[in-house]
Amino acid sequence: MDIFKAYQKEFKSSLEKFISDKSPQNLYRPMEYLLDLGGKRIRPFLCLMAAESFESSPDQAMGAALSVEVFHNFTLMHDDIMDKAFLRRGRMTVHEKWDVNTAILSGDAMLIKAYQSLEDYPTEIFQKLTRLLSKTAIEVCEGQQYDMDFETASVVTQKEYIEMIRLKTAVLVGCALQMGAITGKASAEDQTVIYNFGIQLGIAFQLQDDYLDAFGDEATFGKKIGGDILENKKTILYHLALKKADPKQGDLLKLLLSGAQSLSDDEKISSVKHLFKATGAKEATRKLIRHHSDLAEIELEKLSITEEQKTRFRALKNWLMNRTY
Amino acid sequence: MDIFKAYQKEFKSSLEKFISDKSPQNLYRPMEYLLDLGGKRIRPFLCLMAAESFESSPDQAMGAALSVEVFHNFTLMHDDIMDKAFLRRGRMTVHEKWDVNTAILSGDAMLIKAYQSLEDYPTEIFQKLTRLLSKTAIEVCEGQQYDMDFETASVVTQKEYIEMIRLKTAVLVGCALQMGAITGKASAEDQTVIYNFGIQLGIAFQLQDDYLDAFGDEATFGKKIGGDILENKKTILYHLALKKADPKQGDLLKLLLSGAQSLSDDEKISSVKHLFKATGAKEATRKLIRHHSDLAEIELEKLSITEEQKTRFRALKNWLMNRTY
Repeated sequence: MDIFKAYQKEFKSSLEKFISDKSPQNLYRPMEYLLDLGGKRIRPFLCLMAAESFESSPDQAMGAALSVEVFHNFTLMHDDIMDKAFLRRGRMTVHEKWDVNTAILSGDAMLIKAYQSLEDYPTEIFQKLTRLLSKTAIEVCEGQQYDMDFETASVVTQKEYIEMIRLKTAVLVGCALQMGAITGKASAEDQTVIYNFGIQLGIAFQLQDDYLDAFGDEATFGKKIGGDILENKKTILYHLALKKADPKQGDLLKLLLSGAQSLSDDEKISSVKHLFKATGAKEATRKLIRHHSDLAEIELEKLSITEEQKTRFRALKNWLMNRTY
Repeated sequence: MDIFKAYQKEFKSSLEKFISDKSPQNLYRPMEYLLDLGGKRIRPFLCLMAAESFESSPDQAMGAALSVEVFHNFTLMHDDIMDKAFLRRGRMTVHEKWDVNTAILSGDAMLIKAYQSLEDYPTEIFQKLTRLLSKTAIEVCEGQQYDMDFETASVVTQKEYIEMIRLKTAVLVGCALQMGAITGKASAEDQTVIYNFGIQLGIAFQLQDDYLDAFGDEATFGKKIGGDILENKKTILYHLALKKADPKQGDLLKLLLSGAQSLSDDEKISSVKHLFKATGAKEATRKLIRHHSDLAEIELEKLSITEEQKTRFRALKNWLMNRTY
């Protein structure tokens, strides 16, 4: 996306100023390391784009964009501990490279830094951004807790699953956009609409991530296909399959994702994917993604920004949503 | 302290409103559990007292008092993981009662809740309080990191140790007092002075905690004497003893606190305490406590509050500082 590249340099230099050397090194180096691994930086770009679409300079939104990216990386640092993840963006996770205590404390400091990134804004803007950050942050924690709870829950409905990813993933997308709108002095109505656009976009994106993990194209998806299946993750495909399965299919699916069988990786992936197709979960998931993508489009239409700006958001959405199919 | 009791009921009811039932329970119940264990609630009381001493109602300071106490408990929840502590206030720690992941995530949510507790203040007060919370919070993380670094450092100077406890403990005492002063609309000068009073009080208190752990009276101190020694903790007594020791004493002290000897608990405590006395570290620590307590008194004198209010702070300080000797 060209639009990404336009912001990339500026954001990178702000980030570098932010993570310049500080003491104690064992607190600040892990932050620097994780932020330096890169990632797609979608959230800060959404923030900068939102500010610009309300005729404000993206510079105005830089503090907010930084806050959102630092907050996101805080969640990664702590989530990686909870998930016992070994790799993040192809490199060692912080708790593996240092240790769990370092990742806990450095993550805590990152959350505080996300708040401090908002300090240069005028009083009223500062208050609005800070409240939005707190509301979003607590929801992300709730989402992470539901996600952990769902791993051991016997039944999770579609509604519950969508609510979980709304909290865990989508509210931060909405927050990034609304923060940009706030710094761009958008009306209260536009702020709400762009937030809702972010929610639907975030839900569609996360559902698609579940989908592509099983049915994506390895080259375009950028991760190994079937990773969630091998980790016995309970994604939307699993929950929908379980709901639609006959008793025999249901028992087999549960067995396959219980970790208590001795298939090879390829056999396991192919058996689970077969069940996702046979139960209709694959098709139902595609429909669900389309539904939330359409809802995002409806919100986008409502925004009082120029058609040109809408086109840019649409291009971004399509780029995010059409990664592979 | 009677003055404590006066605030206790009101603070307790604010706290109960704060921790009323929410979903997901696995996120909120651990917060509730830890906050419910009680503790001395010194920080919120200092906040309420400060507001009152500037002729403001303690009610005005309740949000700030809550914020400080919730923040303090967040640090306890995460510190207990890092220290692998089994007990907190005589009950199981959160990571023992639940698990490490729960304690990480619930702690994160508490830190966010500490920010949210400030949301009802008018815009300008909100900004001042939030900035002070962030500044304090990041310093507390730095202090915790230095504390962990010092456990394996070969030499820690008195100055470095004092700076570590200033960050880890004292800045939150200063923050509690300054927040009370901010909500009480104190002048900028009084805010600085009361903050500095808190810093000196906090340093004196923490040094005394080190001291009493070795030389206190079990009944009044409320903890078993020698706990730090048995845990091989490098307190101010250790660092001063090492500095003042002759080579033979130094080697013995290092050996005793390395964990690599086979003495009984009582023998170990008594040998280490003997070295603390023989090297003059015991007396030097007492002097250092007195020094910071005197500095606190000097700050107190500078405050533009009534003599009656100063007397209350003095009584509180003496109560905190004369727990046993």
